[in-house]
Amino acid sequence: MTSAYQQLTRTFQRLARFGHLSAIAGWDMQTMMPPAGSQARGEALAELSVLQHQILTDSRMEAWLEAAQQEALNDVEQANLLEMRRAWQQAALLPAALVEAKSIAGSRCEHAWRQQRPANDWQGFAANLQEVVRLSREEAEIRAQAAGCSRYDALLDLYEPGMTSAQLDATFGDLLQWLPDLLERVVAKQAAEPVDMPLGPFPVAAQRQLGLQLMKLLGFDFNAGRLDVSAHPFCGGVPEDVRITTRYNENEFVSAMMGVIHETGHACYEQNLPKTWRGQPVALARSTAIHESQSLFFEMQLARSAPFLQHILPLVSAQMGEQPALTPGNFVRLNQRVKRGFIRVDADEVSYPLHVILRYEIERALIGGDIEVEDIPALWDEKMQRYLGLDTQGNYRDGCMQDIHWTDGAFGYFPTYTLGAMYAAQLFQAVRRALPQLDKQIAAGELQPIFDWLSQNIWRHGSRFPTAQLIAQASGEDLNPQHFRRHLEQRYL
Amino acid sequence: MTSAYQQLTRTFQRLARFGHLSAIAGWDMQTMMPPAGSQARGEALAELSVLQHQILTDSRMEAWLEAAQQEALNDVEQANLLEMRRAWQQAALLPAALVEAKSIAGSRCEHAWRQQRPANDWQGFAANLQEVVRLSREEAEIRAQAAGCSRYDALLDLYEPGMTSAQLDATFGDLLQWLPDLLERVVAKQAAEPVDMPLGPFPVAAQRQLGLQLMKLLGFDFNAGRLDVSAHPFCGGVPEDVRITTRYNENEFVSAMMGVIHETGHACYEQNLPKTWRGQPVALARSTAIHESQSLFFEMQLARSAPFLQHILPLVSAQMGEQPALTPGNFVRLNQRVKRGFIRVDADEVSYPLHVILRYEIERALIGGDIEVEDIPALWDEKMQRYLGLDTQGNYRDGCMQDIHWTDGAFGYFPTYTLGAMYAAQLFQAVRRALPQLDKQIAAGELQPIFDWLSQNIWRHGSRFPTAQLIAQASGEDLNPQHFRRHLEQRYL
Repeated sequence: MTSAYQQLTRTFQRLARFGHLSAIAGWDMQTMMPPAGSQARGEALAELSVLQHQILTDSRMEAWLEAAQQEALNDVEQANLLEMRRAWQQAALLPAALVEAKSIAGSRCEHAWRQQRPANDWQGFAANLQEVVRLSREEAEIRAQAAGCSRYDALLDLYEPGMTSAQLDATFGDLLQWLPDLLERVVAKQAAEPVDMPLGPFPVAAQRQLGLQLMKLLGFDFNAGRLDVSAHPFCGGVPEDVRITTRYNENEFVSAMMGVIHETGHACYEQNLPKTWRGQPVALARSTAIHESQSLFFEMQLARSAPFLQHILPLVSAQMGEQPALTPGNFVRLNQRVKRGFIRVDADEVSYPLHVILRYEIERALIGGDIEVEDIPALWDEKMQRYLGLDTQGNYRDGCMQDIHWTDGAFGYFPTYTLGAMYAAQLFQAVRRALPQLDKQIAAGELQPIFDWLSQNIWRHGSRFPTAQLIAQASGEDLNPQHFRRHLEQRYL
Repeated sequence: MTSAYQQLTRTFQRLARFGHLSAIAGWDMQTMMPPAGSQARGEALAELSVLQHQILTDSRMEAWLEAAQQEALNDVEQANLLEMRRAWQQAALLPAALVEAKSIAGSRCEHAWRQQRPANDWQGFAANLQEVVRLSREEAEIRAQAAGCSRYDALLDLYEPGMTSAQLDATFGDLLQWLPDLLERVVAKQAAEPVDMPLGPFPVAAQRQLGLQLMKLLGFDFNAGRLDVSAHPFCGGVPEDVRITTRYNENEFVSAMMGVIHETGHACYEQNLPKTWRGQPVALARSTAIHESQSLFFEMQLARSAPFLQHILPLVSAQMGEQPALTPGNFVRLNQRVKRGFIRVDADEVSYPLHVILRYEIERALIGGDIEVEDIPALWDEKMQRYLGLDTQGNYRDGCMQDIHWTDGAFGYFPTYTLGAMYAAQLFQAVRRALPQLDKQIAAGELQPIFDWLSQNIWRHGSRFPTAQLIAQASGEDLNPQHFRRHLEQRYL
């Protein structure tokens, strides 16, 4: 007889196969599709997404989940069952009408935002955003009632299961005590250390070659993935076939180079997820925050370190041509430059958390109902002034209209960037303890021991453990922002 | 109240959306996918194909099809209903397990063939092919019993509805009476007409540029399609987003050039299918043979004619460099060269039907159970010797392993190439009657009147008429191989 658990694994395997097609068609849409394909592709993906929702909310699902809890399951199966229940609850809690309304309002807001942002049209944007916020609050309320938590915590749980705003308040509160001051000291110190900018143009073909060489160095498996171009870089595809993208600017190569390294961090996590449980939720990446910890481990902890930059400089010079800006000292300064700026995605790792905390504070109040959409610009200005010393008044396009996340209601996502940065620092310290010759190995390009450590401690576990347990097992302690602080102080002061 | 016909159109629209995803994921598999993605992709596509099969064989379908026949439908709707019934019958006959098994076996055989062919590994290939043949026979048997015809005829009907092996025997028998003799006379005549071969290398980038320019000249809409590279050239994607492929050899540019023109013929048919019925079966291409008639119209009737070659020579010289082989006379001789060879896809239009008849005879016997997979090489050798005077013993890669078709069980497909060649010749004669200045217009690159004629007579009809009616309406008579004979005699003797 087929057990309830077997029914569930079959159902989730089927969902994974449809998810595969959705991932590849989604990747194609961003990288390959000509414009006239857009409408038909949108309709095809929407049809698939309706089907996936139907399968996940099948009327037999709840009974299977209940029955499976009485069956004899090993610990991996139990973890898998937990993730199945999570996925089912996320899908089944919301009425179809709300899902549809939110999808329509999000599409409309995002679509209009593409014109409104360059036009600095806050009023137009705010009108659409109000509807997205209204529906996001409705969603959050339903999820909060089911989980017995606050509205915002219910959304946060979608991206970092188990995380709460109480924990975030404590952790981000810690950062706020020392980070603005640290930023000021770093900026003052670097003012006395001029940086030569590399002189272009840097042909796309050379930048792509460099990217491929760095991916190889970082352990990307080209037998199971690709590098392509898209307007907004991302890591997509499926664990068996990971598709990362970048965008090239012929006047400047560092952004694409570091972008490729960042996405390679995401990609190596995906490529090294557990193969034996493939197709099951337990084989998937732990969370958005842990995913970001891997990309930031690669980009910030490893690739912007002096030993790594020293190791790759010959590769860089070979592709970009030797020039004064590509001497060892200047190349390090170039990749460790700290500068206060308006734009989150262009921010260095010192100022980045301040961008995130600002958004966290605003979106939490917004979802909680403590503020309304029209309050956002004044709060944004005040916090930008306080945290980064920048004046954004009236400059909505480089202020509260700069990000895509809120346009389609991804409230609760922003904190995962800084959680990822802190996890990355904590994991890197653990690697350093495990590998006493770490800097020498990095300078020599001997990176396999690092990948082995990540595989052993993070990648191979998929979603087997809750994030807190995963981090404690890997690093010997709970999330501790002091590792991030020590990393910044050692690198920048 | 929703009519049965409306239920059907909704169902087929849903199927078209899933078909879109299948087409794009299939294209990706041949052009973009790294090797390690193969198994998961095969499983995902198989899962989708099971779903499509389930939707198409839904228990309500038969009743809807019956009821719709009693509803007031216009003639397009009636034609659509006919195609729906065809699709339903084709699918409803097969058990889901057989559909899935055949899809998985086909994916595996095709993927392995990509390595096995260059390695000349007949034993490895045969092992996979046996499973494909076993499942294809099973499919053919089920279809044959339902249709009351032979196994092979049941498969043939999938690619050219209404065609039978009795008709093919008659038509191919006609060809066999005069074609080998014609081939011999042409080869003898051309022996006295030396051809200068263009001297390479011809960089891939230049060949690609030339291909793109020719696609533009031939009316390909780049807003709704792409050109890429694959091991075996094909035309894929969906009418809104047509994906054609080619392969490049830097020592020789004519094959890729003519290959691109050939696939552009397929692509223009797809891009100009009726838009108002999109998503419905009546909006699809009439048949594989009619599809091939369009690619051969473009390649053989149009592009290898002296006026067309004269018109494109400046484009060719600009990309490949002027040289003695690229004079008008030699360029025509080069593109009208007739030469007995091993490879079907490289064959000229005179010897091509002999390659097809050879395959037709072997696959008919294979599906009929008169021979087994291990008998193929000897039969291949014997027929190559008889029809083309060539020895292929031990050379599997250029013999019975050269084609992709059998790898995923597309038995019944090969005859459509020669049916297409005969339709193309017949349609081109009709265009010549309609456009008295045809050769002058072609020489001047004024091709729009030809595209207009094709659109008017073939493309815009989709599957609205049966093939025989479509051909009779367009050309004024039934399929008549004498047009093909006259074309060959006029061009080559």
